[in-house]
Amino acid sequence: MFPRTIFALLVLAPLLTAQDWRDAGVLDLRKSPHARLHSVPVRAVTIEDGFWSKRRQVNVERSIPSLLALLEENGVVDNFRRLSGRKNVARRGPLYTDSDLYKWMEAVAFVLQSGDNPKLRAQFDQLTDEILAAQEPSGYLNTYFVEDRVPLRFQQMQSGHELYCLGHLLQAAIAYHRATGNRRLLDGALRFVEYLIRDFGPDKKPLLTGHPELELALVELYRTTGDRRHLDLAGYLLRGDGERLKLSRRDVVYLFSGKPFIERTKLEGHAVRTMYAASGATDYFIETGDEAYRRTLDRLWQDMTHGKMYITGGVGSRAQGEAFGEPYELPNRLAYTESCAAIGNMIWNWRLLAATGEARFADEIERALYNGVNSGMSLDGTLYCYRNPLELTGDPEDKIRNPWYSTTCCPPNLQRVLASLPGYFYSTSREGLHIHLYDDNTLDWRLEDGTGLRLKQTTKYPWEGTVEISMRPERAAEFTLFLRVPAWASSARAAVNGRPVRDPVKAGEYLAIRRKWQPNDRVVLDLGITPRLTSANPLVRENAGRVAVERGPLVYCMEQADQFGVTSIFDVKLSHGGERAKGFTGEYRPDKLGGIVELWHTGVAEEPPLTERPLYEALRDVRGRAGKPVTISFIPYYAFSNRGPSAMQVWIPYEQR
Amino acid sequence: MFPRTIFALLVLAPLLTAQDWRDAGVLDLRKSPHARLHSVPVRAVTIEDGFWSKRRQVNVERSIPSLLALLEENGVVDNFRRLSGRKNVARRGPLYTDSDLYKWMEAVAFVLQSGDNPKLRAQFDQLTDEILAAQEPSGYLNTYFVEDRVPLRFQQMQSGHELYCLGHLLQAAIAYHRATGNRRLLDGALRFVEYLIRDFGPDKKPLLTGHPELELALVELYRTTGDRRHLDLAGYLLRGDGERLKLSRRDVVYLFSGKPFIERTKLEGHAVRTMYAASGATDYFIETGDEAYRRTLDRLWQDMTHGKMYITGGVGSRAQGEAFGEPYELPNRLAYTESCAAIGNMIWNWRLLAATGEARFADEIERALYNGVNSGMSLDGTLYCYRNPLELTGDPEDKIRNPWYSTTCCPPNLQRVLASLPGYFYSTSREGLHIHLYDDNTLDWRLEDGTGLRLKQTTKYPWEGTVEISMRPERAAEFTLFLRVPAWASSARAAVNGRPVRDPVKAGEYLAIRRKWQPNDRVVLDLGITPRLTSANPLVRENAGRVAVERGPLVYCMEQADQFGVTSIFDVKLSHGGERAKGFTGEYRPDKLGGIVELWHTGVAEEPPLTERPLYEALRDVRGRAGKPVTISFIPYYAFSNRGPSAMQVWIPYEQR
Repeated sequence: MFPRTIFALLVLAPLLTAQDWRDAGVLDLRKSPHARLHSVPVRAVTIEDGFWSKRRQVNVERSIPSLLALLEENGVVDNFRRLSGRKNVARRGPLYTDSDLYKWMEAVAFVLQSGDNPKLRAQFDQLTDEILAAQEPSGYLNTYFVEDRVPLRFQQMQSGHELYCLGHLLQAAIAYHRATGNRRLLDGALRFVEYLIRDFGPDKKPLLTGHPELELALVELYRTTGDRRHLDLAGYLLRGDGERLKLSRRDVVYLFSGKPFIERTKLEGHAVRTMYAASGATDYFIETGDEAYRRTLDRLWQDMTHGKMYITGGVGSRAQGEAFGEPYELPNRLAYTESCAAIGNMIWNWRLLAATGEARFADEIERALYNGVNSGMSLDGTLYCYRNPLELTGDPEDKIRNPWYSTTCCPPNLQRVLASLPGYFYSTSREGLHIHLYDDNTLDWRLEDGTGLRLKQTTKYPWEGTVEISMRPERAAEFTLFLRVPAWASSARAAVNGRPVRDPVKAGEYLAIRRKWQPNDRVVLDLGITPRLTSANPLVRENAGRVAVERGPLVYCMEQADQFGVTSIFDVKLSHGGERAKGFTGEYRPDKLGGIVELWHTGVAEEPPLTERPLYEALRDVRGRAGKPVTISFIPYYAFSNRGPSAMQVWIPYEQR
Repeated sequence: MFPRTIFALLVLAPLLTAQDWRDAGVLDLRKSPHARLHSVPVRAVTIEDGFWSKRRQVNVERSIPSLLALLEENGVVDNFRRLSGRKNVARRGPLYTDSDLYKWMEAVAFVLQSGDNPKLRAQFDQLTDEILAAQEPSGYLNTYFVEDRVPLRFQQMQSGHELYCLGHLLQAAIAYHRATGNRRLLDGALRFVEYLIRDFGPDKKPLLTGHPELELALVELYRTTGDRRHLDLAGYLLRGDGERLKLSRRDVVYLFSGKPFIERTKLEGHAVRTMYAASGATDYFIETGDEAYRRTLDRLWQDMTHGKMYITGGVGSRAQGEAFGEPYELPNRLAYTESCAAIGNMIWNWRLLAATGEARFADEIERALYNGVNSGMSLDGTLYCYRNPLELTGDPEDKIRNPWYSTTCCPPNLQRVLASLPGYFYSTSREGLHIHLYDDNTLDWRLEDGTGLRLKQTTKYPWEGTVEISMRPERAAEFTLFLRVPAWASSARAAVNGRPVRDPVKAGEYLAIRRKWQPNDRVVLDLGITPRLTSANPLVRENAGRVAVERGPLVYCMEQADQFGVTSIFDVKLSHGGERAKGFTGEYRPDKLGGIVELWHTGVAEEPPLTERPLYEALRDVRGRAGKPVTISFIPYYAFSNRGPSAMQVWIPYEQR
């Protein structure tokens, strides 16, 4: 152990002081020169009895424990034990299984940031032990590229996932350090980073992440260690060394790595890779302020939000290559929309929000979080979507929610999002406090001038639009309270101590209330949640003539299981009665799907059913057919397929009455 | 050579008499017990100065010669020469290149069936020589599974294409035999068939076509040799020996072989494989009359025509696996629609038509032939589509027409269709003569009772709907003339010697005119060709709210190159003015795209352009926007991208005025 101790002393010396880890958020932006907003630690926010508390409880009590059992059952931990000689078994699973375990550990670490959980902490420590016992003296750590495959190390970087696994190891180690102050796993991960820095780089051997992920982990490592070499390695990876590696054009597209990030002009290739690369590039911008990165990131974000993002925040249209498609290529049934890609969208926007403080990025975080991410874990926490399509046929063989995937990247990714969620509610800036998300919760933190601030949100959001905020600064203090007004909240209003705020409350902006805040000041924000009909740009071919039902941050869908007198949901049109969706009725149903507001609207069912009609007909034979009046039920999209396979659709044809 | 001579005497003894080959059509159905219709030899039909003559001229003068040069350039013939020691070169190209040469040879053989062409005949004979010199004494013949790869023979039947190549070899050999009476290549192909029969089958080693094709070739071989073992081997392949071969479920779907054909319930997997398998199964039904095959074929045909076929006759929606999708999964831009699959659709329907005489099959032949097949070869005969999508962005990098593909299956396949086309115009039955296709041409053949019959069609079809038919039976004879009335020809009329026929002229049926036909009787059929608007079943998501323009058998499209004052064709809606498409004007333009009827219709262009609008908007903000009136030009779909890359679409949104 002697060399490792020396190593730790030398390399970790710049690590911040003993208790400093307590104050770091999901991102540690305290010293980041180009962050407009600064993260609030996960532990400073307590999500109480509301929408997310149920999901987070299921995450800790059902999802996280059951997934560890499955990781064990599928040999993912044994893959480490066989290298340390603790078990004599064959390696199992695809070459990237290490990352699945690391992501599970990161989820546990975030749980621990919200408060101790001795059992999970013991499991994390035990796994740390298993992992470090498999690490080679050189620092190299990977359960696949061993024995006969040692010569293949860093030879198959397009597909090898060696650096992807390291990225997730680093993220788990950093999150655990921020949870407990324990650096053991971080020390191990750093040894691998040292190994890389020694052998690879512009004047050494070429390196490629292949699946971007290490980039953002390295920037966060730099924020943790202050070691400039960590940031520089991230910069090297983002510049891309594909020419020396003779990468094909196809690889450079698919991998979204290997060429200078700042030369990218559009989102293309593998969606998760793309989102992670963009996240890492945003982290890099936050530390360096390099304008070329800002320009590229803006261009890519416009590309996504103008034509490559589902209304659920899901991204990645194509199964082939798990890839982005062309602009407006957003098929509903075939939507690939991997849970990890929606998460990638969310974490990218979180970084853009930190860099700019602009509400448009928070809107996309909320869109993805409540819909395309939230759908990924079943209500009982034991089944996961890999794909999150916007339409399902209901074919019983088409199981969209499953307990396990051989590539089980999504389940622990969903777990870490839910576990880290408190860290996404607030930010601070020099001006004051920014509220991004609404739910029943308390904040116990401080302003950037050091003034202690407690705050409590009381709300039934997203089922109701009213949010009451009790302010408890430790003493009267002038600062700005930035309240996010979602882009959909066109009739939002706000009041302080019962008096309406003077400034207009603009949708899609932060409402800035600057005043000398007193203890017990009370803000009421009413976001005016009512059902609304949303149309897609007609260039999205499948959605022309269709609408989506939304209510607050939630996208809704039709499931066959909720319909009466409708043989097929695909035969139904919504009857659109006027310029707003006056036709809706709704009710909170506490016993349905874990508690939801169900919506109903009048519609018409085609007669005869469409499946009994020809594929092609003269237009004149089709026009003006009548149908049968029906009432259509809508449930929140995130809850789809929680009662077994069922036909489902988000985009519904409408007829004008 | 002694053993080969003996072999030829023993095996080819059942071959029909010396000149009998002259009377065989594309299919030789003269002795087929379950054929309702019987083919007319290619040589009996002379296509004269009309629509297809130009295409056929280009085929013989440009396409066929240039492709041989490319096959040589890419080593396809050298792959044979290296085995015979005539050239010392490495093998080149994918493992199925032999089939590309065989298909080219089949095209040449069909050209020769229409009349001698000494140069092409010499080339065919020379190639026969090259091929047979590479055949092993055992009969085995394949340029890939040789030398080090001999142990892999029949070990990789899912992907090996050994039997696929043999199928095309047989088809080329049979077509050449029917062109010239020369059996040399047929002898060689038969030696390979004998090799198979000796070693493979139910009680011997298992066999799988992997890529169906040999099935239909073997049935045609049986029709040529009368050797029941050839039919039986086809039957064995159609029953599928996947269990002994331990094929995965995925393979059985993708390959559309390996399990009993009669257990298929839907079209799935690789589209070309599926179409060829269905063609082979129809051939097998025509010889055996097995009802289980008829039922399965009917079910599969319904599956295709009710939800899995493009309006162009193209099939295969998905690039991934070049596969059929789910019912109604017919994306336009992403349509895979390989030329070979549209050809497969055409040749399958040709067999179904032969079995039944039902016009619905001829409708699909015409649909595919004029559109999704015809589009596959450029107007100048030197460029080919592998995919034939129904929408193109116009991206200059997206070259849809290319002179060569490493998998160059489509170019020779298109050539053989054009070369064999005269064989698809007519059939005979006990009742009389059936006319399936219309174009300027003469028939010189005989009724099934032996009465000689000459007939001449004079028409400007498909540009005009009138077809004049001069009857020249060698003597007055009573028989039925079956005139195909296409399903779209809802206002068709017919007259004999100037007097309207008494029976109603029904669209989608054969009009049966039975009478004692005299020399110089004159039939006039007016199919009433006017532009029409066709709608798709709304379950085809991309086409909801859209129409396709058709005129006669031709599907039309919009190309950017023809529009004035329209920045993007994707911003345009067709203004639909009444219950029929009264808004059209049209004109024959002899100098445009080889001579076409161009159509124009009023429309409206979105302002601002759709690309400048948000991806998602409140429905209320979208409704009622006005646009700019424009005139939209339409050209026949088959002619798309003949002036370089251009945005193109078949399905156009319409607004009701």
